[in-house]
Amino acid sequence: MKAVRLHGYHQQPVVEDVPEPVISGPLDVIVKIGGAGVCRTDLHIIEGQWAAAMSPELPYTLGHENAGWVHAVGSAVSNVAVGDTVILHPSPTCGLCRACRAGDDMHCEKSSFPGLSHDGGMAEYLLTSARACIRLDPQTRPQDVAALADAGITAYHAVRKALPLLYPGTSCVVIGAGGLGHIGIQCLAALSATTIIVVDRNPDALKLAEQLGAQHTVVADGSQVDAVREITDGAGASVVLDFVAEQGAEQDGWEMTGRAGSYFVIGYGGTVTVPTLDIISTERNIIGNIVGTYNELAELMALAEGGKVTLHTRSYPLAGAVEALADLDAGRIRGRAILVP
Amino acid sequence: MKAVRLHGYHQQPVVEDVPEPVISGPLDVIVKIGGAGVCRTDLHIIEGQWAAAMSPELPYTLGHENAGWVHAVGSAVSNVAVGDTVILHPSPTCGLCRACRAGDDMHCEKSSFPGLSHDGGMAEYLLTSARACIRLDPQTRPQDVAALADAGITAYHAVRKALPLLYPGTSCVVIGAGGLGHIGIQCLAALSATTIIVVDRNPDALKLAEQLGAQHTVVADGSQVDAVREITDGAGASVVLDFVAEQGAEQDGWEMTGRAGSYFVIGYGGTVTVPTLDIISTERNIIGNIVGTYNELAELMALAEGGKVTLHTRSYPLAGAVEALADLDAGRIRGRAILVP
Amino acid sequence: MKAVRLHGYHQQPVVEDVPEPVISGPLDVIVKIGGAGVCRTDLHIIEGQWAAAMSPELPYTLGHENAGWVHAVGSAVSNVAVGDTVILHPSPTCGLCRACRAGDDMHCEKSSFPGLSHDGGMAEYLLTSARACIRLDPQTRPQDVAALADAGITAYHAVRKALPLLYPGTSCVVIGAGGLGHIGIQCLAALSATTIIVVDRNPDALKLAEQLGAQHTVVADGSQVDAVREITDGAGASVVLDFVAEQGAEQDGWEMTGRAGSYFVIGYGGTVTVPTLDIISTERNIIGNIVGTYNELAELMALAEGGKVTLHTRSYPLAGAVEALADLDAGRIRGRAILVP
Amino acid sequence: MKAVRLHGYHQQPVVEDVPEPVISGPLDVIVKIGGAGVCRTDLHIIEGQWAAAMSPELPYTLGHENAGWVHAVGSAVSNVAVGDTVILHPSPTCGLCRACRAGDDMHCEKSSFPGLSHDGGMAEYLLTSARACIRLDPQTRPQDVAALADAGITAYHAVRKALPLLYPGTSCVVIGAGGLGHIGIQCLAALSATTIIVVDRNPDALKLAEQLGAQHTVVADGSQVDAVREITDGAGASVVLDFVAEQGAEQDGWEMTGRAGSYFVIGYGGTVTVPTLDIISTERNIIGNIVGTYNELAELMALAEGGKVTLHTRSYPLAGAVEALADLDAGRIRGRAILVP
Repeated sequence: MKAVRLHGYHQQPVVEDVPEPVISGPLDVIVKIGGAGVCRTDLHIIEGQWAAAMSPELPYTLGHENAGWVHAVGSAVSNVAVGDTVILHPSPTCGLCRACRAGDDMHCEKSSFPGLSHDGGMAEYLLTSARACIRLDPQTRPQDVAALADAGITAYHAVRKALPLLYPGTSCVVIGAGGLGHIGIQCLAALSATTIIVVDRNPDALKLAEQLGAQHTVVADGSQVDAVREITDGAGASVVLDFVAEQGAEQDGWEMTGRAGSYFVIGYGGTVTVPTLDIISTERNIIGNIVGTYNELAELMALAEGGKVTLHTRSYPLAGAVEALADLDAGRIRGRAILVP
Repeated sequence: MKAVRLHGYHQQPVVEDVPEPVISGPLDVIVKIGGAGVCRTDLHIIEGQWAAAMSPELPYTLGHENAGWVHAVGSAVSNVAVGDTVILHPSPTCGLCRACRAGDDMHCEKSSFPGLSHDGGMAEYLLTSARACIRLDPQTRPQDVAALADAGITAYHAVRKALPLLYPGTSCVVIGAGGLGHIGIQCLAALSATTIIVVDRNPDALKLAEQLGAQHTVVADGSQVDAVREITDGAGASVVLDFVAEQGAEQDGWEMTGRAGSYFVIGYGGTVTVPTLDIISTERNIIGNIVGTYNELAELMALAEGGKVTLHTRSYPLAGAVEALADLDAGRIRGRAILVP
Repeated sequence: MKAVRLHGYHQQPVVEDVPEPVISGPLDVIVKIGGAGVCRTDLHIIEGQWAAAMSPELPYTLGHENAGWVHAVGSAVSNVAVGDTVILHPSPTCGLCRACRAGDDMHCEKSSFPGLSHDGGMAEYLLTSARACIRLDPQTRPQDVAALADAGITAYHAVRKALPLLYPGTSCVVIGAGGLGHIGIQCLAALSATTIIVVDRNPDALKLAEQLGAQHTVVADGSQVDAVREITDGAGASVVLDFVAEQGAEQDGWEMTGRAGSYFVIGYGGTVTVPTLDIISTERNIIGNIVGTYNELAELMALAEGGKVTLHTRSYPLAGAVEALADLDAGRIRGRAILVP
Repeated sequence: MKAVRLHGYHQQPVVEDVPEPVISGPLDVIVKIGGAGVCRTDLHIIEGQWAAAMSPELPYTLGHENAGWVHAVGSAVSNVAVGDTVILHPSPTCGLCRACRAGDDMHCEKSSFPGLSHDGGMAEYLLTSARACIRLDPQTRPQDVAALADAGITAYHAVRKALPLLYPGTSCVVIGAGGLGHIGIQCLAALSATTIIVVDRNPDALKLAEQLGAQHTVVADGSQVDAVREITDGAGASVVLDFVAEQGAEQDGWEMTGRAGSYFVIGYGGTVTVPTLDIISTERNIIGNIVGTYNELAELMALAEGGKVTLHTRSYPLAGAVEALADLDAGRIRGRAILVP
């Protein structure tokens, strides 16, 4: 089968023939890929930023945002059957450790991350686990939802954790209205009545944010902290969801957070530097966020099936992977690029 | 009456005669002080560290950790009566703002902080509000419990917030077994079955920590992060309560915190510097903490009355205030110095 | 001033002249009534059902759903000023007991309930407390929102408690789409993406429910439990909000509740009869609900000001009180009858 | 191997030879039984009370409270190995449904219950699943802990759910200080500082309750509701844990529950009958409880290994099963009867 393979860091991946995966374990599932999202993390992988953390053996197949149809199943698989339309949680888990037994998938002691730690889904077929499969309405086109598998779940997870803080009358800042952020805004609008304030450098992104439910938009032109303070009557926001968390956003985010508020870090790249006196005198929190749980992805799919979260996508054939990556890097993608094998 | 007054920063307070306070508002309460705690914050006040934040008009009376007996009450006071033994929440509140209506006293929009923002309790009498008074068993000696009014409530507040994370089988690190920390250890032991690991530079403090319920003690001699990692089988702790949060403790505390764990900042003075990649890849949190609520102080008094939290104190007459401050500064106090007018 | 007074049980109230109320306590507030809701509870009061619980001294003025403008304030009132437009929490509280200090207004040890325990708001002026006043946008017409003061807060309180159970993919049954229920449906639609199933005997009420956000409506014609089971694929609902809770609804509600689900009792009049084996074998809960907190009413007003909750009302002059009560009793009111003095 | 088999309802089980179980599925585990608890539910099974709900095919082996050593494992078992000492969660689960993915084991869509639905652990060997196995310290004697597998987890689950309600200063009533109750008392004492009030008919059980941490004991001689009201200054308790829930306890329990309090149903057999007006006017809750989660059993084992929960047991050989059942039925067991094959 064809697959998008990384042979070395700092060089473009190659589309080449590799053997199809085979079932070996009782919970194995092979999925025929219908859509594989192209993510900024793929650019970071190529740059070698994840080499130390994930130690994949090169060459390997990229792709951590996948949906498709079940092609084959192991002997103990009972939750999906051949032919089912599925979206895949990005991190198959062991199912037996304390974290798994609490539903806390991202903290599984033995999890893997296809596309980062080993062969992913930019290919015709992907080997995954029954524990990663969420069955969808058979009408769903995998390419339309694939990006929810990673960008979507990550935004949803953060929003869901923030919801108890976002009762009517509060304000929530969203920093970054791109791939993750534009899903986060839709989740906020669907699940709360908080006042949504979106901050982005890009006026087009802000226009989209307004359409998706933002009450206020702020251009990040240097005055964004003051602008948020003003919108919130000087108080700052109850919650700041920072989908950027680099290049100064992480300092802005903290400063936009009001007394007893919480600053949610979702993006990465920067460094938070805060005096402990500031932390205690205002009793603010800094909340880490990483992807989300299997059930959260299922909940997000319920939102998507109800029409409350939709994605803008642009599809490429598998052979167009390098072009898609280049378009992403150059800022030519609105929404998400999706490879359709 | 006699009072311990600060006339200028960087100079010792003076014990001198001032007029007794008088009732003017309907919820005013005047308390005859039975004990006023001497706190490291008093040293910081004298050094001018709180001048900007609190803007007290000099001279004024120190003392933010107070207990005594009700001496006079305003016309609308219904929760205490003259003669009642009381401990005082450090921050009288308005009772009408959103935060007050949620029981979130520390975030009252109009709160004051006697001893920091205006006249405090190192005096024969203190003017406070009905909203700050908690009635105690008449047998209680104010000097025995005064330190719970600030050191105690602060430790209790952080522990109470951490409790849902501290189910059996977890570990909790306490950094600093001093004034606040030794109360925190007792609260943890009374309210959870978590494994308590105490880190301190001082071997005597660690000895006390063991008596109070610590399962492990670690001397902070440079190897403390490794020691905690080892005790926790490499995983780090579910919760770190940092009662120091300066001089490197704030970096240690973060590193001692395990995946999906929470680092509670309670002390202050240092600066937290953490890459956002570290925050998200492990989904750790940094949790701010400031004093506590009125109800939390009442709960702590229930613990104290049940014998589950006890304080080591050393009493001084009001005239000995400067000596007490000097003893505290020189590290000659075990537990808490208490002024007894 | 004119007031709607009850002189004896089982007889109609009388509109008559009474002295205007006067300020006597420091937190007293006198409100010029702009709208007073007419509620089924007023019918129950007249029938004597609340005589024992509330022991009002007859004659007294009815009216527990009030909004208007501040007319006079006591010496210690700082949250509202003369001329402010306000809605009134139905239960002024002491502000000093444990429940008040936790924001749990309905469990204040010394609360009163104007219109049930003593003079209410079906009059030109009402004596209440600063603690009951929520300041509104000056543009708000009190008669448009008065019904949120009791019907609204009660529905909102129950919905807010249920929200953590109502993640996307769940179902929520609403029994009764009348005065409270039609607000509850709007709150659910604004604050969750749960599938809303509304059960009522009245087809018109179900039509309104659909317009307000119900995905499914079920006529309570005897087959309603089966219908809900079918809509929920046999599982029952995660949450049932029972705004009726009498005449069999309370049995239906329990049966519509799925495994690990919660049956919220909001209406009253019937009796729940459930074998403990049923409770434990399915781990279902029965959740009591009574009015709501001050902050919840403020949150509901934020929803209303955002256009997410609207009320259908029909106004009557104060002199039309008996007619309004008769119309309510006869089922001639759609939405809520409001007296406008 | 020998096994205790039920051949017909209303007749004694028989100890007889049956084939040893064999591994067939990838997650299968066979455990050599070291201890099997004898439970009141076994008496109910013999009486046929569970025949309809569980539909076991007769004859089958009793025993749902099991601990021992791993004897054989299926191909995909990674959490335990042959020779490990284990305690068994009573309900092996699928691991793939929504409830399993949330850690909510008791609501698994495909769970089984060995000893009720099919062959249990009153035998030399038991077939179970990797998902039911919790590895213990190799020093642990299975017969000392087996009763924690069902009685223990059930008590712990209810206590853990109640803990957020049981801050210092509250009261908690425990109805029934028998098999489950005496574990519940120990859990409460280890994990809270609530005032524990124990109600039982049996003065010996109350004596034990005091030793285990009860502050107050009440003989259930008809005045128990008044006694609890008196101990709680007329307010009732914040939480009532009813381990009996039949023969009037279920009515007592509700009446002992204070305003805004929660009545936890854990035992079964009776019927709760409560006017909805009582539910709403006091905003009380009725909370269902059934066994507990895998992680909760692991937490309870941490408590047990820390010496905070201990069991009184009396051991019988497998051949003494009928005698043990008779002793239990006649009230001759203090603590728990354990079969040791």
